[in-house]
Amino acid sequence: MKWTKKDLIGLENLTSDEILLILDTAQSFISVLNRDIKKVPTLRGITIANLFFEPSTRTKASFELAEKRLSADTLSITVSASSVVKGETLLDTVKNLKSLLCDIVVIRHSYAGAPVLLAEALENMGIVNAGDGMHEHPTQALLDMLTMKHIFGEIKGLNVLIVGDIKHSRVARSNIWGLSKFKCNVGVCAPSSLLPREIDRLAKSFTSLDEAISSAKWDVVMALRIQKERQEDGLFPSLREYHRVYGINVNRLKQLPKKTIIMHPGPVNRGVELSPEVADSSRAVILNQVTNGVAVRMAVLYLISSVLRKG
Amino acid sequence: MKWTKKDLIGLENLTSDEILLILDTAQSFISVLNRDIKKVPTLRGITIANLFFEPSTRTKASFELAEKRLSADTLSITVSASSVVKGETLLDTVKNLKSLLCDIVVIRHSYAGAPVLLAEALENMGIVNAGDGMHEHPTQALLDMLTMKHIFGEIKGLNVLIVGDIKHSRVARSNIWGLSKFKCNVGVCAPSSLLPREIDRLAKSFTSLDEAISSAKWDVVMALRIQKERQEDGLFPSLREYHRVYGINVNRLKQLPKKTIIMHPGPVNRGVELSPEVADSSRAVILNQVTNGVAVRMAVLYLISSVLRKG
Amino acid sequence: MKWTKKDLIGLENLTSDEILLILDTAQSFISVLNRDIKKVPTLRGITIANLFFEPSTRTKASFELAEKRLSADTLSITVSASSVVKGETLLDTVKNLKSLLCDIVVIRHSYAGAPVLLAEALENMGIVNAGDGMHEHPTQALLDMLTMKHIFGEIKGLNVLIVGDIKHSRVARSNIWGLSKFKCNVGVCAPSSLLPREIDRLAKSFTSLDEAISSAKWDVVMALRIQKERQEDGLFPSLREYHRVYGINVNRLKQLPKKTIIMHPGPVNRGVELSPEVADSSRAVILNQVTNGVAVRMAVLYLISSVLRKG
Repeated sequence: MKWTKKDLIGLENLTSDEILLILDTAQSFISVLNRDIKKVPTLRGITIANLFFEPSTRTKASFELAEKRLSADTLSITVSASSVVKGETLLDTVKNLKSLLCDIVVIRHSYAGAPVLLAEALENMGIVNAGDGMHEHPTQALLDMLTMKHIFGEIKGLNVLIVGDIKHSRVARSNIWGLSKFKCNVGVCAPSSLLPREIDRLAKSFTSLDEAISSAKWDVVMALRIQKERQEDGLFPSLREYHRVYGINVNRLKQLPKKTIIMHPGPVNRGVELSPEVADSSRAVILNQVTNGVAVRMAVLYLISSVLRKG
Repeated sequence: MKWTKKDLIGLENLTSDEILLILDTAQSFISVLNRDIKKVPTLRGITIANLFFEPSTRTKASFELAEKRLSADTLSITVSASSVVKGETLLDTVKNLKSLLCDIVVIRHSYAGAPVLLAEALENMGIVNAGDGMHEHPTQALLDMLTMKHIFGEIKGLNVLIVGDIKHSRVARSNIWGLSKFKCNVGVCAPSSLLPREIDRLAKSFTSLDEAISSAKWDVVMALRIQKERQEDGLFPSLREYHRVYGINVNRLKQLPKKTIIMHPGPVNRGVELSPEVADSSRAVILNQVTNGVAVRMAVLYLISSVLRKG
Repeated sequence: MKWTKKDLIGLENLTSDEILLILDTAQSFISVLNRDIKKVPTLRGITIANLFFEPSTRTKASFELAEKRLSADTLSITVSASSVVKGETLLDTVKNLKSLLCDIVVIRHSYAGAPVLLAEALENMGIVNAGDGMHEHPTQALLDMLTMKHIFGEIKGLNVLIVGDIKHSRVARSNIWGLSKFKCNVGVCAPSSLLPREIDRLAKSFTSLDEAISSAKWDVVMALRIQKERQEDGLFPSLREYHRVYGINVNRLKQLPKKTIIMHPGPVNRGVELSPEVADSSRAVILNQVTNGVAVRMAVLYLISSVLRKG
């Protein structure tokens, strides 16, 4: 199995072998990260631009650290400072980055489809999707899958319940695509206002969390971050009410099998998606997810740059 | 010919030999940029501060990448976060950067004359003008001249027509100064509201683009970015009208000699200064300009630091 | 004497031997900073996060340069871009940085006590206080003390007068704690509205600057920056009036012994805390303080990381 793609757009268009190759590569970088000197010269002389059109601390920090630990040169551009404000098209902005001899662009954009548009337009430049609208957030799902693999040995056939705003969540979408390649049993649970229409083609859906919990021997319960703006849109009544009905608390944790792990892409709204006790319990692997994120992003950047160097 | 200046303030006070030395040095860095590992250890241990008092993505990114590819340490300070807000004088701010042992300050400032003021006040510290008010933007003109040199072999005697807001443009000013050292035939074309008063001392001026186009065998047509604020000031009626009268479109391109190249400092307002067909045509060298910008900035920083190290 | 602490919270809880160890270590880094290549590979592979919840140019720049000159990898996070806006707790934010494998967090926070809270909660991660509310700003006081040591040979027994907004100043607090470990004679001078209540336990207080000046043979007069917001709070009548009563001008400089040096943490409000003549006089050591700040921060980061590496 060899990596041949210059871009990472989403998990929908990756094979399970490609996903495993990324995870195995990430595993080898985890041993780098465990060293005293957490750094390799692998991408020396490679320039990576981080182009974030939506605010982000954690994903941007994770990519930047992945890049620095690979010894790449980095350039980070945020929206407000960007000339995009001046009316330049996205394609022109990225063509300029290519002319500045950036090798890879990591992009987060509110427009679902921005990364694929760029990937097709730009030969010999790598595009990594760091989240596009409500479409995909592939490195998040990959780090989630690496975390599952660490704990359960393999991803194949896992029972995974995703709880929260499935409708607007690119994290949910990428996980559903990725896990489905490994014949996982994926369930989703949300108020009907936060479930997408054709979800039943992809996953079993629940509107009652307690019913969802008792319906299978879940290996993983993944709570999604709730955006407070959705409340203003009238999609759920209040954060307190949301927690009562969809929050993972100690009582619900007790209903789950002993092996079940609790995941969350962060940042956690304590007392909303998770009760503080659950967020801090040994069952929660939220901080492992963060560490695995750096290794997964190192792996993606490394694999893509190996294709570009040959190109 | 040896470089002896610790600062780059503008092209007005450079000789043609000094300009050629920068361009030749830039040329040698272009071969570095073509390597797999686009990086040299030349400025290791040198610290360069980028002090931008006006928003800028592209010039700032170009300088930052030039610095990183020379292995310098970089510090980037933007206006809003800066203590300048707290009422400190510009000179005190830069003296502080010197005391932090920064070797070179790259400065963009709305006040024409800020860089020369600093250059004179600060011994043994390099000042690079990245654009000062309506005065000069020397690295932009140098990258323009490097681009012309690549295509026409030499700069001497070229016919260059600059179209757009000449009055408020430091890019135009620096190009006119630089090209005049090489006895180029420089024409400028703009509505009379956007032509500076004493322009006729420096260049032949036109208010009709079609007349300008037919008046000489232009090697270069350089379109300047139009600032939409100028429309609010009533200096031209509308972007659509501007494009009709001063935009380079396919028809006008046909009136120009086959050899004529189209330049633009970016970011391009498509459909205003250039029609999309012209912006994307093989005659436009806008992206070459961007690549040459990195090499020119590497050259300027390298030459200046060689003077400082001796100093 | 060996350094054993993983955190730097304040000078209150350091011994005079620990302070001297930091200053001696800083002294050895000053010789690095005097070299042509101002850089050592000491912290290669170490990651340092700069987490600033209050705007800061100079302290942040000084830390960043200290980190780069030690060859550490750096990550800088500013408030507005931070997910803290999204409601995450400070402890969760820093736990995430730890999971991203950051070794040390440099934190500035408006809440006095934030650094110690983090230091106690996070094993095997270094916390450096870059200013917490009105509590301490230890690296500022350390660089002040290094500056005094350079000039007077030793800190012991120095006469130091601090003038300005003592009440709200973490710089004053850290200096008072630090200097008291060396049996210095510390005086403070401010309008009574800007003196803390129990100041007399720690320092001799004056409300008249002229009286303060004549009361001892001061080695050091340290003027504190006045925040213009305090005027709005009605704590002093006007900047002009403040300068008349509490500003160091040429006349007052003449009343002071010839040896007296003038210090200021910067940025200076010229014509307020110091007259321009005093700010620019050879008696002012403000820029030396800035240079010493880089060395002191290198020393702190070096000592802390040596403890973490063993841990």
